Amino acid sequence: MIKNYLHDNKVWVDTYLADVLEDSLPEYQTLYDAMHYSLLLGGKRIRPILTKAVMEALGVSADAYKNVVCAIELVHTYSLIHDDLPAMDDDDYRRGQLTNHKKFGEAMAILAGDGLLTEAFSLIGRPSAADASQQIACIKVLADAAGPAGMVGGQAMDISSEGKALPLEELQVLHRGKTGALFSAAVTIGLLLSRADEATTKAFQTYADYLGLLFQITDDILDVVGTIEELGKTPGSDERLDKSTYTSLLGLDGARAKAQETAEAAKAALVDTKADITVLTALVDYLISRTN
Amino acid sequence: MIKNYLHDNKVWVDTYLADVLEDSLPEYQTLYDAMHYSLLLGGKRIRPILTKAVMEALGVSADAYKNVVCAIELVHTYSLIHDDLPAMDDDDYRRGQLTNHKKFGEAMAILAGDGLLTEAFSLIGRPSAADASQQIACIKVLADAAGPAGMVGGQAMDISSEGKALPLEELQVLHRGKTGALFSAAVTIGLLLSRADEATTKAFQTYADYLGLLFQITDDILDVVGTIEELGKTPGSDERLDKSTYTSLLGLDGARAKAQETAEAAKAALVDTKADITVLTALVDYLISRTN
Repeated sequence: MIKNYLHDNKVWVDTYLADVLEDSLPEYQTLYDAMHYSLLLGGKRIRPILTKAVMEALGVSADAYKNVVCAIELVHTYSLIHDDLPAMDDDDYRRGQLTNHKKFGEAMAILAGDGLLTEAFSLIGRPSAADASQQIACIKVLADAAGPAGMVGGQAMDISSEGKALPLEELQVLHRGKTGALFSAAVTIGLLLSRADEATTKAFQTYADYLGLLFQITDDILDVVGTIEELGKTPGSDERLDKSTYTSLLGLDGARAKAQETAEAAKAALVDTKADITVLTALVDYLISRTN
Repeated sequence: MIKNYLHDNKVWVDTYLADVLEDSLPEYQTLYDAMHYSLLLGGKRIRPILTKAVMEALGVSADAYKNVVCAIELVHTYSLIHDDLPAMDDDDYRRGQLTNHKKFGEAMAILAGDGLLTEAFSLIGRPSAADASQQIACIKVLADAAGPAGMVGGQAMDISSEGKALPLEELQVLHRGKTGALFSAAVTIGLLLSRADEATTKAFQTYADYLGLLFQITDDILDVVGTIEELGKTPGSDERLDKSTYTSLLGLDGARAKAQETAEAAKAALVDTKADITVLTALVDYLISRTN
């Protein structure tokens, strides 16, 4: 059952994250509180779970690499804090709770994001079963996914294009940066930690590309058909911000068809590998099932 | 002549930084422009020059390690962009030019800072003469200096303490995070790249602690006695923001005495090493000379 798998592994991630921020100087307590608040606000932990699932598909346990696997979630959390800022999407709620800047003020929220982003790289540098070459390869992959050619670039394009109708091609570039890059990094880090061969790497990275796209399309659909309980925020936010989405460009039915087609392509990418693809395939079906 | 040394090495750093941001997708051009703008706005490049000088003092050329050495300046530049934001110090000018958010808007400035911070870690991961162990050690040092226990922590304390009179002890904690941590990292990265022995490392790190403190004290003095040309910004900004400084706590003469004493301690730390300490000693004298 994929729901049990997701639940158990969310606990695995949450347990590690609860203690990951080390003791601070008393003078810096507010900053640590702000970082901790957003890091433990909940969330599905889909990215580190994806890394762990990739490793397991290749017969490697993630237990001795928790620091590297969970570093991805620090980067994801930082990006949510900064995306929610008044100068960006100006959101008051995230996962049903006040956003970081509503709770700690704008300056502290900027710094909490900066702190989580920086700490992610330090975390990968902590001792683990990963050797120095694996650590540096994972840092390079994560930094490139998070940086100007990835998430930061995608977000820059997003804020520049509010109120403009983007053609589908540009929307895909935007999402490849904003969402796809970190999904892709999560899979690649799993491959690096598993020392996967070239053919497996290629197949899994194709899977990652489709999975990231699928995640974005289903997210856009959920913003239209989801409830406030499912989303943890008010639905319809894309429309209010006049953002181009897969549903605004393709219509709801068109977006659903595109999601189905993308899901098939993701699964097809894995068929010829020697890996145990049960969980990775179930993840695809799970993303589709959320929109029905 | 230390001034020639600083000039020549500023050119060495600037030349590398001019090309360090790789080609971007056309959609992300504004973000790259914003990153490039602040990275090439000038500045003394004192931190990477310090790393290079440490290596030279130990008989190692920095030429094959430019990416690692200059990554420090990306972190410094990111911190200036975020410190200048309206929610932080709200500065309109930096080095005599518009601050990033005045030129590119607040959202883009936040992202340009995020991009430079992230790119710093990717940069260290690029191929160079550093092996994987050195790369990961340098990333760990840089991330810890930049992160919540270092610069981000110091800045959080700084914004929380505006309008409050800090006792000297807390002011030192604040500055050890905000300024000292990156000075210390610059020296430690030079030591790591030079594979310095333990005794040398200890002596140089003591030097780094005093040098960072000296930099901050002389900066506070310059904010009182400097001209707008020397500072690239309006003097007296600390007083306007009602910030605790060495001059507000010790008076101008007291701060000058403290600077002199700190300079002597920095130089004394190096005396018993086998390194060529000419440039590192001259750097101390140079910092003092700026306040006379």
